[in-house]
Amino acid sequence: MSGSVGPEGVLMAGVLYGVGLGPGDPELVTLKAARLIGAAEVLAYPALAGAASFARSIAAGLIPAGAEEIVMEMPMTEARGPAQVAYDAGAARIAAVLEGGRDVVCLCEGDPFFYGSFMYLFARLSERFAVEVVPGVTSVTACAARAGVPLVARNERLEVLPGTLPEDELAARIGGAEAVAVMKVGRHLGKIRRVLAGLGLEGRAVYVERATLREEVVLPLAQAPEAAPYFSMILVTKGGDPWL
Amino acid sequence: MSGSVGPEGVLMAGVLYGVGLGPGDPELVTLKAARLIGAAEVLAYPALAGAASFARSIAAGLIPAGAEEIVMEMPMTEARGPAQVAYDAGAARIAAVLEGGRDVVCLCEGDPFFYGSFMYLFARLSERFAVEVVPGVTSVTACAARAGVPLVARNERLEVLPGTLPEDELAARIGGAEAVAVMKVGRHLGKIRRVLAGLGLEGRAVYVERATLREEVVLPLAQAPEAAPYFSMILVTKGGDPWL
Ligand SMILES: C[S@@+](CC[C@H](N)C(=O)[O-])C[C@H]1O[C@@H](n2cnc3c(N)ncnc32)[C@H](O)[C@@H]1O
Ligand SMILES: C[S@@+](CC[C@H](N)C(=O)[O-])C[C@H]1O[C@@H](n2cnc3c(N)ncnc32)[C@H](O)[C@@H]1O
Repeated sequence: MSGSVGPEGVLMAGVLYGVGLGPGDPELVTLKAARLIGAAEVLAYPALAGAASFARSIAAGLIPAGAEEIVMEMPMTEARGPAQVAYDAGAARIAAVLEGGRDVVCLCEGDPFFYGSFMYLFARLSERFAVEVVPGVTSVTACAARAGVPLVARNERLEVLPGTLPEDELAARIGGAEAVAVMKVGRHLGKIRRVLAGLGLEGRAVYVERATLREEVVLPLAQAPEAAPYFSMILVTKGGDPWL
Repeated sequence: MSGSVGPEGVLMAGVLYGVGLGPGDPELVTLKAARLIGAAEVLAYPALAGAASFARSIAAGLIPAGAEEIVMEMPMTEARGPAQVAYDAGAARIAAVLEGGRDVVCLCEGDPFFYGSFMYLFARLSERFAVEVVPGVTSVTACAARAGVPLVARNERLEVLPGTLPEDELAARIGGAEAVAVMKVGRHLGKIRRVLAGLGLEGRAVYVERATLREEVVLPLAQAPEAAPYFSMILVTKGGDPWL
């Protein structure tokens, strides 16, 4: 995975790997992700300013001693500008390594192209460098597995919604699909509860927090805590299809 | 993984594992799935009458010599009755093994709870036996990774639809989300094309066939073949969110 020389004796740029790590349990990493991480010379990942990186913690047991780590410090704000500046800086550091002919393995919680921050690096680097995305287990099917809730079969539709959407929008969307996953619950829990109660669906909703981790919580929505952390999800299935 | 004896000296029933194998590339199996398959005494999987099982082919390199295999022969028909009979029979064979105190590892392409046939076994067996579902990489994020198409970020919504839905239903649904995955394309390709053309979205659609396998095809929808196989998907992203 390091500096190879092309036909004209020119140094070939490295490859950027965007590697999905799954929802948290280190055993839910794919064989391919494990192989790429285990052979990596340079790794990159985002971390909230001052905090440990969740992505890095999933991969910790696989990272070779002596690997170089590019930590992209993300500001603790929902404003867009500072995050963009952080991704610009991270992309520049990664680009410098790729230009030097070495590969970079970017660690991504879940799947890189499913609400993943890797998308911001992809947007900045995919036109200049070869990029390979390695898909990972998403939090949606991980939460369903842990909750024992089959999601969709046959002709059913699955709707994935961020809890950040406005109340009326959530209500319209949740009403129209056989199965719904509401991501990014956190401080939107109260709003989501109101929407589900209004649709008469509270009894069909499951709350899942930190799925597949030691601290996992799985509860009927009615018994969910008042304060949900960021790493939580609500699954709603309407049981419309008789499985038997 | 075999017959253990409980506190009263009673034989304890085995555990049914529903194990996701990802979209096809054997390296996209998770470490956990690989461990469970590698230690399995009894495996189960569906296969279309007379054909090889796709799920088994993904796991082939991991299956221990001498493992017992329960093959559920599925009839070549879209009618519901015969498939139900086949699952009833398969569930009965699996139940007999579990009652004998041995675990059964059921092989599932992609993720078991995401349009997976494991859901029919779960419906039949989860009340009587301990079941553990191991989530897998779904075809949706695998197709996105292979096509280089970021799916959803921030406030965006993802809609997953089976191509079997009626034309007007597809049109209404595809119009309303930032990203759409249309599964089970096959003989519905013409209808899906018409819907996308009607919405002015053909140029934003990608066709992906047998993602992550050697025979993989990735094309703009306009260049897709006339006849699509069952293992194909159409991804539509509207690029509404400026990534930079
Ligand atoms: C920025 S998104 C990242 C999603 C990730 N790329 C994936 O493929 O699942 C973060 C959201 O994913 C969900 N999430 C991620 N991991 C989770 C887990 N282990 N348990 C519950 N929800 C999780 C939560 O809804 C959280 O707000
Ligand atoms: C019965 S569903 C099974 C889905 C699977 N359980 C999953 O998690 O992706 C079969 C459909 O999945 C999609 N599919 C599965 N594997 C695929 C692949 N390797 N490439 C493209 N589409 C695939 C196709 O749309 C196909 O019609």
